[in-house]
Amino acid sequence: MIKAGIVGGTGYTGVELLRLLAVHPEVELAVITSRGEKGLPVSTLFPNLRGRVDLAFVEPDDTVLKGCDVVFFATPNGTAMRSTPALLEAGVKVIDLAADFRLRRTEDWERWYGMPHTCPDLLAEAVYGLPEVNRAAIRSARLVANPGCYPTAVQLGFLPLLEAGVIDPQSLIADAKSGVSGAGRKAEIGILLTEAGDNFKAYNVSGHRHLPEIRQGLAVVAGDSLDLVFVPHLIPMIRGIHATLYATLTTPDVDLQALFEQRYGSEPFVDVLPPHSHPETRSVRGANQCRVAVHRPSNGKTVVVLSVIDNLVKGAAGQAVQNMNLMFGLPEIAGLDGIALLP
Amino acid sequence: MIKAGIVGGTGYTGVELLRLLAVHPEVELAVITSRGEKGLPVSTLFPNLRGRVDLAFVEPDDTVLKGCDVVFFATPNGTAMRSTPALLEAGVKVIDLAADFRLRRTEDWERWYGMPHTCPDLLAEAVYGLPEVNRAAIRSARLVANPGCYPTAVQLGFLPLLEAGVIDPQSLIADAKSGVSGAGRKAEIGILLTEAGDNFKAYNVSGHRHLPEIRQGLAVVAGDSLDLVFVPHLIPMIRGIHATLYATLTTPDVDLQALFEQRYGSEPFVDVLPPHSHPETRSVRGANQCRVAVHRPSNGKTVVVLSVIDNLVKGAAGQAVQNMNLMFGLPEIAGLDGIALLP
Amino acid sequence: MIKAGIVGGTGYTGVELLRLLAVHPEVELAVITSRGEKGLPVSTLFPNLRGRVDLAFVEPDDTVLKGCDVVFFATPNGTAMRSTPALLEAGVKVIDLAADFRLRRTEDWERWYGMPHTCPDLLAEAVYGLPEVNRAAIRSARLVANPGCYPTAVQLGFLPLLEAGVIDPQSLIADAKSGVSGAGRKAEIGILLTEAGDNFKAYNVSGHRHLPEIRQGLAVVAGDSLDLVFVPHLIPMIRGIHATLYATLTTPDVDLQALFEQRYGSEPFVDVLPPHSHPETRSVRGANQCRVAVHRPSNGKTVVVLSVIDNLVKGAAGQAVQNMNLMFGLPEIAGLDGIALLP
Amino acid sequence: MIKAGIVGGTGYTGVELLRLLAVHPEVELAVITSRGEKGLPVSTLFPNLRGRVDLAFVEPDDTVLKGCDVVFFATPNGTAMRSTPALLEAGVKVIDLAADFRLRRTEDWERWYGMPHTCPDLLAEAVYGLPEVNRAAIRSARLVANPGCYPTAVQLGFLPLLEAGVIDPQSLIADAKSGVSGAGRKAEIGILLTEAGDNFKAYNVSGHRHLPEIRQGLAVVAGDSLDLVFVPHLIPMIRGIHATLYATLTTPDVDLQALFEQRYGSEPFVDVLPPHSHPETRSVRGANQCRVAVHRPSNGKTVVVLSVIDNLVKGAAGQAVQNMNLMFGLPEIAGLDGIALLP
Repeated sequence: MIKAGIVGGTGYTGVELLRLLAVHPEVELAVITSRGEKGLPVSTLFPNLRGRVDLAFVEPDDTVLKGCDVVFFATPNGTAMRSTPALLEAGVKVIDLAADFRLRRTEDWERWYGMPHTCPDLLAEAVYGLPEVNRAAIRSARLVANPGCYPTAVQLGFLPLLEAGVIDPQSLIADAKSGVSGAGRKAEIGILLTEAGDNFKAYNVSGHRHLPEIRQGLAVVAGDSLDLVFVPHLIPMIRGIHATLYATLTTPDVDLQALFEQRYGSEPFVDVLPPHSHPETRSVRGANQCRVAVHRPSNGKTVVVLSVIDNLVKGAAGQAVQNMNLMFGLPEIAGLDGIALLP
Repeated sequence: MIKAGIVGGTGYTGVELLRLLAVHPEVELAVITSRGEKGLPVSTLFPNLRGRVDLAFVEPDDTVLKGCDVVFFATPNGTAMRSTPALLEAGVKVIDLAADFRLRRTEDWERWYGMPHTCPDLLAEAVYGLPEVNRAAIRSARLVANPGCYPTAVQLGFLPLLEAGVIDPQSLIADAKSGVSGAGRKAEIGILLTEAGDNFKAYNVSGHRHLPEIRQGLAVVAGDSLDLVFVPHLIPMIRGIHATLYATLTTPDVDLQALFEQRYGSEPFVDVLPPHSHPETRSVRGANQCRVAVHRPSNGKTVVVLSVIDNLVKGAAGQAVQNMNLMFGLPEIAGLDGIALLP
Repeated sequence: MIKAGIVGGTGYTGVELLRLLAVHPEVELAVITSRGEKGLPVSTLFPNLRGRVDLAFVEPDDTVLKGCDVVFFATPNGTAMRSTPALLEAGVKVIDLAADFRLRRTEDWERWYGMPHTCPDLLAEAVYGLPEVNRAAIRSARLVANPGCYPTAVQLGFLPLLEAGVIDPQSLIADAKSGVSGAGRKAEIGILLTEAGDNFKAYNVSGHRHLPEIRQGLAVVAGDSLDLVFVPHLIPMIRGIHATLYATLTTPDVDLQALFEQRYGSEPFVDVLPPHSHPETRSVRGANQCRVAVHRPSNGKTVVVLSVIDNLVKGAAGQAVQNMNLMFGLPEIAGLDGIALLP
Repeated sequence: MIKAGIVGGTGYTGVELLRLLAVHPEVELAVITSRGEKGLPVSTLFPNLRGRVDLAFVEPDDTVLKGCDVVFFATPNGTAMRSTPALLEAGVKVIDLAADFRLRRTEDWERWYGMPHTCPDLLAEAVYGLPEVNRAAIRSARLVANPGCYPTAVQLGFLPLLEAGVIDPQSLIADAKSGVSGAGRKAEIGILLTEAGDNFKAYNVSGHRHLPEIRQGLAVVAGDSLDLVFVPHLIPMIRGIHATLYATLTTPDVDLQALFEQRYGSEPFVDVLPPHSHPETRSVRGANQCRVAVHRPSNGKTVVVLSVIDNLVKGAAGQAVQNMNLMFGLPEIAGLDGIALLP
């Protein structure tokens, strides 16, 4: 059994990790930390875990964490980087669900996250945990940077097209929509039911932190010349991301459907829908799954890709477990066979 | 492996049965029928099942169904009773998720359901599938009448009080609220998002079919003198039932909390919350669980019980699987260990 | 034109007052105060008011407020009582939408609201602003305590029965459900869309501040012996209250429908639905209206009343405007003729 | 007073017309027709109208309709064209809220709507009722084709850019999202709360009937060479459209904010938000208003316009009343001064 620790378990990625790890056949939940809620049984905060997780939150304690095989950081940005070097030193594998190790260039990270990075050397070592791109590297990684939710949905949608070289990398538009849980479990007016419910709006059109992450991931394939417009929106629902992606075709006679099916045919967690399909966010609710469909309206010059994930699963905790499975040589799907809840 | 068949799989109890049975360690899904959708892959109608259930709907066919070990009816009322005698004859166990075998008295059934019953003799044999009451009988049953959703939530809330004889059986009020999936997957104006969304209302105050079912279940304990007012309401959400139950205490010095904890202490799927708790429907979303709390406001003469279930799981498909486990001598919790999805 | 001021306009009752007063034919909006948002245009916080209300929030200033004809307090509890004596002294009429003047007994107020009352003498003078009960007194009042949202829905439902003496005043149960806006515009985890959305629960079963207010209102008719159990619940929607009321009939042969129609026949804002109706909260969304229906299930001993209001209109700002109309001798319906938004 | 008739009043545009016309100072509601609901009081179907509209549905009757000054068609496509010639003949003005007169070319109409047009000659006479474009023509029109909801939001967003010639007309992308009421009041599985709630998806990516309407409207300015990709999505909410519009700038040094403010400075129902704003659908809920904001992310080559309307008001019934006001020489804002309901 793999001894797993979770640092910062009071947010939604934390409870989702607990939901998944509590039924994982190869994992023993060893410790979960929270400064603010120390002493509180996890199941008091998250009553869905009653009878299933009997841990209480404890203060972060290096000795205990160093006794784990793997530590997940489900913390605000800037927290994981402070503890990670010592944990790696002690032989613990680390998976950061926040953004501390997602950007490779220190200056990019510091500009977008507004603070100095305390272990920039680890930025080079950290493996970006998108298994569909970096599976081999993840298998041998000590430190995995778990991708953001929007970046997962957007990259999985654009990658087959960029890898095949059939679109103009300067023409990318990602019109993305997220359920409110993407904003986290924070006491803020803007995400009250009375404010975000029965409402729809764009936000951060002038710049969102996931933009450089998506650019970096796509540039690995397309080169630095790529031009991406990214517009996020808030959907009045709890879970789910829907990315609607646009690009200009440069190779009009390509068989787009075949391209996607070949690219993802052996991927356990990416599902290419039949032609003319419209994936629904509810079809992945609670499941570690990305479903994509590719369209070419009016047989014109623009390709449209529709990509959906559950932001808390394939966009966060589920992908983290998938990465853990790879890092420990387990079957990639271990503990991830739950079926999406529909309706 | 138990070969399971599902008759009428295009509704919400059908898809929920599929979600649960597809990951059940002891079950092989043999057949699913639907006259209207014959030939259609199940996963086209319910895309959450893509890659997990590769059956297509077939026309009901006695030969195939008779080759099953168990057949679930997820059909409209009045369907199961037509096929059940032949299936039982062939040695197949039957679990009816509709109402055909829930009421013991033929005349009651015919009055509330508005049609003649085609096999009234089986009404006496059928076991009412509430394991917390009838566990032993279910174990040896050929035919189980799976309880309704409201009746499950309401009975589990009232039973400890009636069994202990601490409330006046003439004083019962069940103010119950259900998510919209309780109305089924039917093309009706009243349950459109535009009609039932952002709205709350009572319905069927003058009489709901679950009233005689609840009365019958409680009368086993309390006798025929019991008087129950049952008012159902529609909540603008998909899943979940919340029953708020009122009764007049006749034994004011009873320890209500202890009473509930003793009654349900060994039940795997009924969770008694600590004093002063308010169970939330989301704490059981997708899980085969009932959570209850008992209150006595102002230490007065009225006891208030709060009882929540997921109407599609403990209120339908999950309870059906729990019954199947009992009927086949499996661990009662087999295939039912999924944790509720929160948030 | 009546010069109106609003103290504390950043909450939902504040914006709702602005929405109503901005189109009121006899009102000039003179000033709106907020310490926290001083200088901010009202329409920046509430973009529905762009182009319709060009005020900015200012710090509370007695001189300006004393120049008003009427001041509305849309503030947290405990604020209005500090400024009200000076305003009354200056000849300004005051309508408090918070709870400062709702309870007549100082000791009750101090126990339920947890602070000393700074002007207990005014508790006796303040008129409880439920026009269907106190219309004449409101007309001549200087100080009106605008009722709470639950108390409005519950009292309007029980009053005809208690006034007619046809129910046992010791048998009252109010199972009430509210949209989330009833909790106000506050940064709290529990009312995030991710927490309160797709969920249903009871709260404060052991005691809610609206309980003594309801008791006091009903006791005027029924005497102090009345016994009321009040259980509030949270509905996953923005606006609306649905009260389901239960009482034991003492006069079984009363014509309940006629009783309600006679009681409310001339009320402009209480609508008695036909027999067997189920009022919906959306039928009053945005409108100053209470709709009620009365039932007697199975012709039994229990009467069931269903009562709906929009908690922000008839349960707060709309009722405040109705009171203002009465206090200034205007037509009672002035400015209140907006029709509910459906769907 | 203008005598107004409504044909087909059982859908959402019908009830919305009633809500607006019932308080319009210059309109007398003369008749409302529905074959299916003949005899039913309007307020039974739409309880928000109780006490405010006392009409009952009647069968369509030419004599009565010909006695009206204006007739609104709130009918399925293909209905208005059958009655319109006779009404015009009788001197009645006609406003069609369906699509019968929206496309100028008969062959386009017949291809997209799948039926022959019965009065193609009127297609040339009909004025497309977007007042911000065709105000003068509407003033003198006998027959107005009220625009579709998506076309209103999309055209108002693109028009300033196309009119000023600052974008490439071959680069247009409209990623549009609509609340469920846009699908009408029809008994269909796909728009049940249980299907469309807590979910997000695109639909009709391969072609939506509003595409040729938008193209036609924009081509008046940009010429036939324009290329538009239009992807509609379904939001889990009742009312509101949010269009996110993308185009490639050809004149990089244009002041986009000034361009929009000049274009719409004198429009009563188009509100240009300050720079860096994100309009919310709730800011126009129930109001005849379009709010737009213009962005240029990273100061790059792509302009992004955000445009919101209430699909039932500025996208249907409100715009129809605005057109009526123009056709009868009334103040354009008569009866349209209701403020959006927020929260």
